[in-house]
Amino acid sequence: MRIAVDAMGGDNAPKAIVLGGLKAAAERKDVTIMFYGDEEAIKAEIEGPTPENVEIIHAGDKILSEDDPVRAVRTKRESSMVMAARAVRNGEADALISAGNTGALLTAGLLVVGRMKGVERPALMAALPNLANIGDSVLLIDCGANAESKASYLNQYAVMATAYARAVLKKAAPSVGLLNNGTEENKGNDLTKEAFGLLKANDQINFTGNIESREILNGVSDIVVADGFTGNAVLKSVEGTAAAVMKLVKNAIMDGGISAKLGGLLIKGSLKELMTKIDLDQAGGGILFGVKAPVLKAHGSSNATSVFHTILQAVTIVESGIIEELATTFEKEMPVKKAE
Amino acid sequence: MRIAVDAMGGDNAPKAIVLGGLKAAAERKDVTIMFYGDEEAIKAEIEGPTPENVEIIHAGDKILSEDDPVRAVRTKRESSMVMAARAVRNGEADALISAGNTGALLTAGLLVVGRMKGVERPALMAALPNLANIGDSVLLIDCGANAESKASYLNQYAVMATAYARAVLKKAAPSVGLLNNGTEENKGNDLTKEAFGLLKANDQINFTGNIESREILNGVSDIVVADGFTGNAVLKSVEGTAAAVMKLVKNAIMDGGISAKLGGLLIKGSLKELMTKIDLDQAGGGILFGVKAPVLKAHGSSNATSVFHTILQAVTIVESGIIEELATTFEKEMPVKKAE
Repeated sequence: MRIAVDAMGGDNAPKAIVLGGLKAAAERKDVTIMFYGDEEAIKAEIEGPTPENVEIIHAGDKILSEDDPVRAVRTKRESSMVMAARAVRNGEADALISAGNTGALLTAGLLVVGRMKGVERPALMAALPNLANIGDSVLLIDCGANAESKASYLNQYAVMATAYARAVLKKAAPSVGLLNNGTEENKGNDLTKEAFGLLKANDQINFTGNIESREILNGVSDIVVADGFTGNAVLKSVEGTAAAVMKLVKNAIMDGGISAKLGGLLIKGSLKELMTKIDLDQAGGGILFGVKAPVLKAHGSSNATSVFHTILQAVTIVESGIIEELATTFEKEMPVKKAE
Repeated sequence: MRIAVDAMGGDNAPKAIVLGGLKAAAERKDVTIMFYGDEEAIKAEIEGPTPENVEIIHAGDKILSEDDPVRAVRTKRESSMVMAARAVRNGEADALISAGNTGALLTAGLLVVGRMKGVERPALMAALPNLANIGDSVLLIDCGANAESKASYLNQYAVMATAYARAVLKKAAPSVGLLNNGTEENKGNDLTKEAFGLLKANDQINFTGNIESREILNGVSDIVVADGFTGNAVLKSVEGTAAAVMKLVKNAIMDGGISAKLGGLLIKGSLKELMTKIDLDQAGGGILFGVKAPVLKAHGSSNATSVFHTILQAVTIVESGIIEELATTFEKEMPVKKAE
């Protein structure tokens, strides 16, 4: 198996990307890590000889976080991200990973790797920690690939996430909830009301009804299906709130006088363990589903450990055969629902 | 001033409502608290003689949390909520407060109290804690009154919240952010792109551009304008995430062995203070803007203290004259933008 890694994307590139990739190469000798980026800069991060299962492919350009996504993918053809995506399209690599410009990665996935036949819109799926059952994840899809959505897209997202939860998370009948403004069947806007009907009638999934955003982290359903605009807002508010509250807890300890400081020292280990458990980076990056090969987005602030986890996640997805399974599903079962 | 209080709404009604109302009556002898509900049940919560500035108006019916909002308001005409709303419409009371069925309260506000002339859609505004500046609030509007939105509604929400922030929070030029999926001007869906243009051109407000949901609690803008579906999802995810993280912190301390438990005892005071500071109930309830009188929603789980705060908030709003100001603004300046 060969994984194409954009070595130049993300706040800590290329260092964190290269170190994470090397760790993955050491862990999985049967997987080849292909670094795309500035050859000199990548080599500078490799101590000693380059491992046998690591390749460096020089890219003279890179996409910046402030670049306009579509224009950047179209014009920066020799950028590390686009070259890595091209390798996947040409069958030279089995999956694409980047911690760079999210919009550009979605665009590269769609335009370069290519949409899967029968899929109306690819969607970005994130794994949130299930705080009621530490170690378990809740899958949120779409969390930002599409600003405008149709009910039929949401129905396809449910199928994609169900395949992932079965094959990768080993859940036999993962429950699917529809993100809505109330739990009752008649709740919602025009989009969610229509989506509710489609999901309810879909016998490929285990639909359990509407779910409100306040219940997502409690693991009420294994999968939460949302339109990309709302899913994006919810994902970012979960991240922002968790970070803000943890910071407040730290401040309360630091500003709470001598006994609070002493108490803080005593609970430091437990809190640190907690932080690791709920660290969103640890859960791996977001996955773009509905394209011909796995495209994984690592957080922009990814360190080497999160890059390592994201690469292993890509390996697991490729090994699971889920992409082939989805291709068969959408080509056979939803041939009339092609995007206009 | 006279405040109409639905004594039968909320998880802890009528006890918490009556105790909170009595506390407000004791604090503000110049304000009359009008309890609507089961006379016997209300009286059972009052120890000693009923204070002079407290009135009990018997209501033989009540709206349940599981009732269909529109049907309940239309058919339960002798319910405590609808009777209280009617008192406001008839000028017998200056504001309406309920901790009951949110949808029913919005409906009662719209159908019974009545929409303000020139306002397209009333909106629900919530005050979130500004975690970067404890004691300050961030106003989120609309957080759930409208499942479907138009850009022009959002523009009016910005005017409503600005008037509130000026008059009640004493902010001279409160900044207004538009909730969006990115900070750049060209980001968003059709709705937010159009709303951006209207907000930018609106010289009645201090528009500072797009804001992502992860930044709301950091007080990046004083006011966050959102469509009601997304605003609702963000509000509930902030609440859910904050509660889940605080619970995890507690568990980490309790399950962390003897030293963590000792440490927990030492920081207990600081954490408790923190919980009070970020308690969403303390910030008061949501306010329905765009109707002819203040309609305040207290959290369903409100205790006496939150009811007390919500009543005082209503008094402040009535005293501020903001409702008259908004009525003048919308009638004069937006006469062509009536709802269809």
